[in-house]
Amino acid sequence: MRRIEVGGAQPYGVEVGTGLLSGLQIPQRHIALIHPVDLPAQFVEAVQASLSPTVTIEVPARDDCKTLAVLSGVLSKIAAANIPRDGAVVGLGGGAATDLAGFAAASYLRGVAFYTLPTTLLGMVDAAVGGKTGVNLPEGKNLVGAFWPPKAVWCDTDTLATLPDAVFREGAAEGFKHGLISDPSLLERVLSPEFRPGGANLADTLADAIAVKAGVVTRDLTEQGERAFLNFGHTLAHALEAVTGHAVTHGEAVGYGMHYAAILSRIMGGKDLTPHTLAFLKWQRPAPLPPLIFEDVMPYMARDKKADAQGVRFVLLHDLARPYLVRVPEAVLRGAFEEWKTQVIYRSEAR
Amino acid sequence: MRRIEVGGAQPYGVEVGTGLLSGLQIPQRHIALIHPVDLPAQFVEAVQASLSPTVTIEVPARDDCKTLAVLSGVLSKIAAANIPRDGAVVGLGGGAATDLAGFAAASYLRGVAFYTLPTTLLGMVDAAVGGKTGVNLPEGKNLVGAFWPPKAVWCDTDTLATLPDAVFREGAAEGFKHGLISDPSLLERVLSPEFRPGGANLADTLADAIAVKAGVVTRDLTEQGERAFLNFGHTLAHALEAVTGHAVTHGEAVGYGMHYAAILSRIMGGKDLTPHTLAFLKWQRPAPLPPLIFEDVMPYMARDKKADAQGVRFVLLHDLARPYLVRVPEAVLRGAFEEWKTQVIYRSEAR
Repeated sequence: MRRIEVGGAQPYGVEVGTGLLSGLQIPQRHIALIHPVDLPAQFVEAVQASLSPTVTIEVPARDDCKTLAVLSGVLSKIAAANIPRDGAVVGLGGGAATDLAGFAAASYLRGVAFYTLPTTLLGMVDAAVGGKTGVNLPEGKNLVGAFWPPKAVWCDTDTLATLPDAVFREGAAEGFKHGLISDPSLLERVLSPEFRPGGANLADTLADAIAVKAGVVTRDLTEQGERAFLNFGHTLAHALEAVTGHAVTHGEAVGYGMHYAAILSRIMGGKDLTPHTLAFLKWQRPAPLPPLIFEDVMPYMARDKKADAQGVRFVLLHDLARPYLVRVPEAVLRGAFEEWKTQVIYRSEAR
Repeated sequence: MRRIEVGGAQPYGVEVGTGLLSGLQIPQRHIALIHPVDLPAQFVEAVQASLSPTVTIEVPARDDCKTLAVLSGVLSKIAAANIPRDGAVVGLGGGAATDLAGFAAASYLRGVAFYTLPTTLLGMVDAAVGGKTGVNLPEGKNLVGAFWPPKAVWCDTDTLATLPDAVFREGAAEGFKHGLISDPSLLERVLSPEFRPGGANLADTLADAIAVKAGVVTRDLTEQGERAFLNFGHTLAHALEAVTGHAVTHGEAVGYGMHYAAILSRIMGGKDLTPHTLAFLKWQRPAPLPPLIFEDVMPYMARDKKADAQGVRFVLLHDLARPYLVRVPEAVLRGAFEEWKTQVIYRSEAR
């Protein structure tokens, strides 16, 4: 079992290992457990057996749970169960369910204790650390929420064994990104045959990928500086998710977006890291993209919350582990898009 | 013009005076203004003229705006107006509208700057100071929200002149309560003929009533101790609001509840302060209560969020300005209820 400390005003630990769900202990006696409807019953039952929640609340699968309407129903169920101020909300599931559960914890009675049990690679490496919670609006993703750090995070690697292969590979994108921006040793470890459910290097690689985010978040709790580097690859990724109506998943979009950011990095004078991002895409095998032109994605990139009045801000890399922030002119964005497109839009001729 | 400082991690000022709405200045350039639909147009226009909001959002009157459904619509309008992270939400109206606006500010993009312009006595004395924001659930009032202090509060006493007399008198309850728990000079000043819209002592009395809450909140930011004293009169008040389906308003319910708490205080060994609370009720002339028996209100008092596993916790008074917390046995609650009922339920024989 590995343990990573996350610092800040309310420090907490992230435990990574096997069999964690069956041995949970928390001090709160009144507990609301929230999990997605499609989570394998054995994990829900393991948590129920170890925590004896007052109420267990099922929410829709994946991003369908991240709405204010679902939040409203969840909060009503927590209130109907009379969870008191010194109770807790426990989120069990992928990043969407734990984002929702965290926002429910942040807002119920203006804030109760929150614990999170991510069951996907993406949820473990990205969503579980950093204190961001929230839901989507029709107008955009993650536009509503709170900073509400958990009291503890448990990443039980047993839960990864039941994931479809594509969901596992999707989730590796954030870990690979942590390799690019901070810990290059992760690059080959993520692409290794042993990085798979039950694989020999899974827990350690996962723990090191989480440690990158934990370090950044500890040093930059309110997203004023270094934390922005975690958005490497995300500006085009958010545009791809939006323009395809989420036909590509977040992790797949990040895979595509990292390659675009690598092209931009090279054009802007950095080392050519595209062999790494292409190798990752080859390993990840994301869902193919529809035909796209620059004008399809540019409005979404300009609307991204990392944009402001001065233009579209990108995280780029001088070299491995040397991220920086820069505003990229539209002509450069367009040129890089054309190069990116010829390499990644496999099906554009088929239409 | 009077200015009261509220301390804490993010200190801010409360200004009390006339003509404030026309001279507002805030550093944010992108602003969402939220106000209830029934607010007199001249106040909305005054704020629009001084702040030039990007978007103005009307919400339902009174507590009808304090729902997650209304919040959802408000957040969508803020997002559609592309209010950025460095924008602001301004709440103009009674306590319900400013509670909603504050929660919208707390949760949009995980928190943007919030300013509040209360236009009712209740909003000025109670809701505007303390950082509590939120909405109701079908399961109970104020069950969802955030602690999100404003950057500044402006109490423009001109807005009180348009209030119906009953709404003004309702709102005096919290000011009178601050007299009972902390500043006895407020007791006769609130009941004075000069305490009225345009009255000579209005702004000063209001400022001193606000200063009581500002002092408590500054010393106790997270409601662990002294802040609980602000709940004097509120345990029965919440029960009366619930059991009458909000046919009595909050301020009226607090008027009734303060008298009940004064009876309890005397029974539990304190000085008899019921002459004060009866004088207030005579001055306030609240809506009459329906016939009630103890069993109607007890479940709501026991469910109050100030209750816990050990029983119903009450704020009582040893004497003026000497509040304390105590658990009151059910037999005492029942006896006091019978005494209270004979004094306040005017219409019980008429049914």
